[in-house]
Amino acid sequence: MSANHPIDTLADSRFIRACRRQPTDATPIWLMRQAGRYMPEYRAIREKVSMLEAIRTPELAHAITMQPINAFAMDAAIIFADILTPLIGMGLSLDFVKGEGPAIDNPIRTAADVDALRTPPTAETMPFMTDAIRLCAADLTPRSLPLIGFAGAPFTLASYAIEGGGSRNYQMVKGMIWDAPDVWRRLMEKLVIVISDYLIMQVQAGASALQLFDSWAGVLSPADYAQSVAPYTRQIIANVKSNPQSARVPLIYFSIGTGTLLDQVVALGSDVISIDWHLSLDRAWQYIGSDRAIQGNLDPVLLFSEWPALQANVDRILAEANGRPGHIFNLGHGILPGTPVETVRRLVDYVHEKTLIAQASAER
Amino acid sequence: MSANHPIDTLADSRFIRACRRQPTDATPIWLMRQAGRYMPEYRAIREKVSMLEAIRTPELAHAITMQPINAFAMDAAIIFADILTPLIGMGLSLDFVKGEGPAIDNPIRTAADVDALRTPPTAETMPFMTDAIRLCAADLTPRSLPLIGFAGAPFTLASYAIEGGGSRNYQMVKGMIWDAPDVWRRLMEKLVIVISDYLIMQVQAGASALQLFDSWAGVLSPADYAQSVAPYTRQIIANVKSNPQSARVPLIYFSIGTGTLLDQVVALGSDVISIDWHLSLDRAWQYIGSDRAIQGNLDPVLLFSEWPALQANVDRILAEANGRPGHIFNLGHGILPGTPVETVRRLVDYVHEKTLIAQASAER
Repeated sequence: MSANHPIDTLADSRFIRACRRQPTDATPIWLMRQAGRYMPEYRAIREKVSMLEAIRTPELAHAITMQPINAFAMDAAIIFADILTPLIGMGLSLDFVKGEGPAIDNPIRTAADVDALRTPPTAETMPFMTDAIRLCAADLTPRSLPLIGFAGAPFTLASYAIEGGGSRNYQMVKGMIWDAPDVWRRLMEKLVIVISDYLIMQVQAGASALQLFDSWAGVLSPADYAQSVAPYTRQIIANVKSNPQSARVPLIYFSIGTGTLLDQVVALGSDVISIDWHLSLDRAWQYIGSDRAIQGNLDPVLLFSEWPALQANVDRILAEANGRPGHIFNLGHGILPGTPVETVRRLVDYVHEKTLIAQASAER
Repeated sequence: MSANHPIDTLADSRFIRACRRQPTDATPIWLMRQAGRYMPEYRAIREKVSMLEAIRTPELAHAITMQPINAFAMDAAIIFADILTPLIGMGLSLDFVKGEGPAIDNPIRTAADVDALRTPPTAETMPFMTDAIRLCAADLTPRSLPLIGFAGAPFTLASYAIEGGGSRNYQMVKGMIWDAPDVWRRLMEKLVIVISDYLIMQVQAGASALQLFDSWAGVLSPADYAQSVAPYTRQIIANVKSNPQSARVPLIYFSIGTGTLLDQVVALGSDVISIDWHLSLDRAWQYIGSDRAIQGNLDPVLLFSEWPALQANVDRILAEANGRPGHIFNLGHGILPGTPVETVRRLVDYVHEKTLIAQASAER
């Protein structure tokens, strides 16, 4: 399989080159949640089917994944799925409640709940992912566009599994970390098995890059992150990197509000670190070091702003990146519902034009 | 008035000495929102009167302020009020909706809205504050306990005034900063007048310390904070420090999620910097420098934990403070409703006992 893997064809794509800190003709851009509610094409599909049905129907997941690729000049696609999907195969009952986000009917609260969790191969519990990724890769590779596979990082997945949904204060997940550390460790160990397997499976199906979403890591103290979270996330990245197939694709670690944990984030071992707008790109590079690519870091709320303010902020970010190889332009978090489609188009085109011009003048 | 001001009597209190980075017999402790819903005495009062009525009735504000002082060995009291109270005198219609928090019926959206805002002396619009502070100071000073006055910082107040209440993405306030910078500047200038006056008035009434609450500053990029927020907050602190009476009391700057903005926070000029649990205390001190006192930084969720975990975290924080003069023990954010009263008592006593013992062994 590896002989025909898309990564062989895509090694010279803008996105993959930037992940590997190789020079590119222009700064690559993609946007988190680029296939989402802000697009009328997406809403048209989702009016007819539920979130889970769309994820579980490879033809629909393929169609949604391709929507922003067909609409804009994105440099990468990301497979349409949800970070919580793997929890279903582990035995949790997941649903998406309209307007309220995900809800888990049987959240994990006790040692017995953790012991009851299963860790079956994700190729068996989520065959639809393999099919959707194959469909997308077949469509994208001839266009020189990589497909990003992804998974939730163990702390963020555990938070949902324990809280049963979104949370304001993360009281229950923190309670397990502090008061039942052995139960927490067993939960983390099971998540490491499933998430590692799920990421590797996505590469085997045709993903050319991976992103670990640790959206909630920023609620922890440095001490808790170091002791109760980082070892498991690091283990997942090590597992992905020790598999000959998945070792060949770049891995991005995404989190929010972890600017004070950057030394620990760097030590996780990802190829690319995605940062949010709380830290300037030049300072982030200073802390992270020159041996990693950096993804980011526009405030998604700026897409609701008028063009002059948005342009000024894009210019600032590009100036902070200062032409270093290894910058992937992205938001600091996902596109918000209601974002104007025309602004997304203008942003994507502007990042390309601005960096192509910079490249051209540098050559003169 | 200054001859009889409580600060003269309280210069040797633990809290004031720590604010001034002078050695103390034990580490002082108070807890943000220490007079609040977790206390049955507080709920008993609030069952009968609304939030605004309690704030506007000096006898009730006095009673509530004293509740945690009578119940625990706190080293300072904080006047019972709300950061949004000053907005009423400016012409905004504020109410507290049960279970939903503050709501402003006529939020600020346009240049005309900003122009219509008034900036009357706060002693005239909020005479109840003067009275409540006098009652509290008369009660506290003989017990060698300082009273902390406070105000919301201009960004956080403007956020409420513009969004009309709590916000998920701060879309409207950011929109004004980015797309209507002149309107934003005029709003900030008016808030600087009112907040400066309000803080000075509280000192004149008898407050021995001040805290500026910038709860939402952490949603901004370093560039936006530098350009659109920090100058106004700095101006308020300069105004307080240039008034002979208020210059004599320590000023604390509180914010959340600003670990990546610490250099800018230091430059604001407060005597004490309150930090949250996203940064370890020793690293914070390293960034901030030894010329400021530091307040913090226990995760308030730890008060729901069992004692061994809470104790381990208190021990860690005290070890990070490492006996430096100028540590004020506090949470990183306010006490959460539902926090067990007995845990608060145990925490306060433990911080005193642990640091008294450390002091005693250091003397041996």
